[in-house]
Amino acid sequence: MDFVTLRKNNGIATLILNRGKVNALNGAVVDQLRAHLKRLEAEPDVRAVILTGSGKFFSFGFDIPEFLAFSKKQFTEYLVNFTDLYTYLFLFPKPVVAVLNGHTMAGGCMLALACDHRIMITGKAKISLNEIGFGSSVFAGSTEMLRFWVGNANATAILYSGAMYQAEEAKALGLIHEAAAEQSLLAAAEHAAALLGAKASPAFASIKSLLRKSVAEEMRQREASSINEFAEIWYSDATWANLRNIKIY
Amino acid sequence: MDFVTLRKNNGIATLILNRGKVNALNGAVVDQLRAHLKRLEAEPDVRAVILTGSGKFFSFGFDIPEFLAFSKKQFTEYLVNFTDLYTYLFLFPKPVVAVLNGHTMAGGCMLALACDHRIMITGKAKISLNEIGFGSSVFAGSTEMLRFWVGNANATAILYSGAMYQAEEAKALGLIHEAAAEQSLLAAAEHAAALLGAKASPAFASIKSLLRKSVAEEMRQREASSINEFAEIWYSDATWANLRNIKIY
Amino acid sequence: MDFVTLRKNNGIATLILNRGKVNALNGAVVDQLRAHLKRLEAEPDVRAVILTGSGKFFSFGFDIPEFLAFSKKQFTEYLVNFTDLYTYLFLFPKPVVAVLNGHTMAGGCMLALACDHRIMITGKAKISLNEIGFGSSVFAGSTEMLRFWVGNANATAILYSGAMYQAEEAKALGLIHEAAAEQSLLAAAEHAAALLGAKASPAFASIKSLLRKSVAEEMRQREASSINEFAEIWYSDATWANLRNIKIY
Repeated sequence: MDFVTLRKNNGIATLILNRGKVNALNGAVVDQLRAHLKRLEAEPDVRAVILTGSGKFFSFGFDIPEFLAFSKKQFTEYLVNFTDLYTYLFLFPKPVVAVLNGHTMAGGCMLALACDHRIMITGKAKISLNEIGFGSSVFAGSTEMLRFWVGNANATAILYSGAMYQAEEAKALGLIHEAAAEQSLLAAAEHAAALLGAKASPAFASIKSLLRKSVAEEMRQREASSINEFAEIWYSDATWANLRNIKIY
Repeated sequence: MDFVTLRKNNGIATLILNRGKVNALNGAVVDQLRAHLKRLEAEPDVRAVILTGSGKFFSFGFDIPEFLAFSKKQFTEYLVNFTDLYTYLFLFPKPVVAVLNGHTMAGGCMLALACDHRIMITGKAKISLNEIGFGSSVFAGSTEMLRFWVGNANATAILYSGAMYQAEEAKALGLIHEAAAEQSLLAAAEHAAALLGAKASPAFASIKSLLRKSVAEEMRQREASSINEFAEIWYSDATWANLRNIKIY
Repeated sequence: MDFVTLRKNNGIATLILNRGKVNALNGAVVDQLRAHLKRLEAEPDVRAVILTGSGKFFSFGFDIPEFLAFSKKQFTEYLVNFTDLYTYLFLFPKPVVAVLNGHTMAGGCMLALACDHRIMITGKAKISLNEIGFGSSVFAGSTEMLRFWVGNANATAILYSGAMYQAEEAKALGLIHEAAAEQSLLAAAEHAAALLGAKASPAFASIKSLLRKSVAEEMRQREASSINEFAEIWYSDATWANLRNIKIY
């Protein structure tokens, strides 16, 4: 199954998450996304990448019903795979514009935070790191990326509350860069991708690395222990009971 | 003497600084505050802590007249004790809401910065890291906590000026989260404590640690040398002359 | 040739960049600036320093036409010299106020970022880290200083775009502290320098170091590899072609 669709136009590659109604993330999505990115990184004619979702969701986050069948060891392997992907995306040498076409939750929000520029649809769609709401923690890397964009005070407010934000609130917090109505979302994305893609590639890659490499080192250094703590909490009785009540379809 | 009063209600423990007119901090206050916190950390029915002061002050900061009788060695021991306390409080696994019922100065402000949420009374009360005004430095850990909340630019403005801020200015700077009139201060505090206390404890503790542990490591790494430099400046002739002129009662 | 003019008045030393029409930076300017600063650091009657430029520019940045005649080795030596200077300035124990009397570009902006307070003239003058516009990277240390003042989100916007900002925009981004019309620029500078210069020197130096020493360690740790990458990009065919088209007089 292809859960990630690729389109190319004028040096801009668009990757579209396309898995069920909510683009729930699992190992296959992570693997396909990485494989696409690896190819796009190597293609000289690709100047910028747009990452978006199909339907009413950018992504709901993890496919929780699927993961309920996983052993802790299997789930931990997925978490390593997932956090490796967002770290790779965070350091991707070409510009990546996230187009948040709908709800952007938990793991979906983490992928978006790894990009260079986030444009979110106005209206009912929400963005959230809502893990605390169902008794889950987050990861060291996702915390660092959040801190990178919004600072520690807003990161604290976002993670402690697990609140869901519409585009304008998200922009005020620094979670996104632009809010755009549905009819102008695509044009805004292509404009942003074209602007960043027009920069000299070696200079862009070098500057991005100067801004992010030390952050990524911090992410990598703390990720393994944070994954273990995340899994401990995930498999605790109280959190497990919450997870069993989550419906994603 | 009991310088810290404890009240409990509905899973919320309230610690009230209660020492003289200005709740000046000394070794006894630090020891009692730590002892209370250690017990509250271990009590499963305590979901959140409120830290506040009695009277017109949250805290004036250090009891300078008392410390004028200390040798540099004794004073340094107190500084280690005090900075250990704020680092412990910064990493306290349960939510801590600081209710700034009045003036919140110097060391008092440092304790407040270690909490998760600060609500300050509107009106004449001021918050300040005013050390530079009497020729004193601050500590590495307090600098990191300040930076955590307000960023480097505002931290620079606050520490270079030693200015005293009313609640609305303090909120604009990021020093506090909420400003509340005297009659609504308690209700605002209980609301904030109840909200944070309602979160799943393991998830809250894990997320708080993800946000703060790396900061606390930075604090601990630099604290000893900063304490020595602080004491050198404190006992210099020029600063000592200023300290002798400070009246706190 | 004297490319840096020194004036002293009431404990405030003013250093004026004075090299051609645009105060382009080269090895001589860097050496003279460092020599002046070393002397001012040691003079007890100097309470604060103002750094400004003559004419319509604070500084255009590097003297690109001069550097086109340099071997990569010579240019790398200059880059080490220049980045050493801004790191020294960033840690200078006395207050330094940058008065941006006109355009403040690239390397000129980096020097300004190392100061404690920036006042920029209103009107047509622009401030920019415009390196990406001609295919150049920046340095690790300049990235850290930018991050220090404006946070990661604004640092990303500034460096990815290479945009040029007038004073009010620059203030909103956190690049400068004050915007002042030409006729009040000098008074604003002297006021800021006098305020900071009036603080107790040991306390000011200690607090400045607490805020900046860990940042400077990060700068130093990454500077050498960033200089090598900068030089690689600078001497690439594409960037070199851009550099040959830059006119500075």
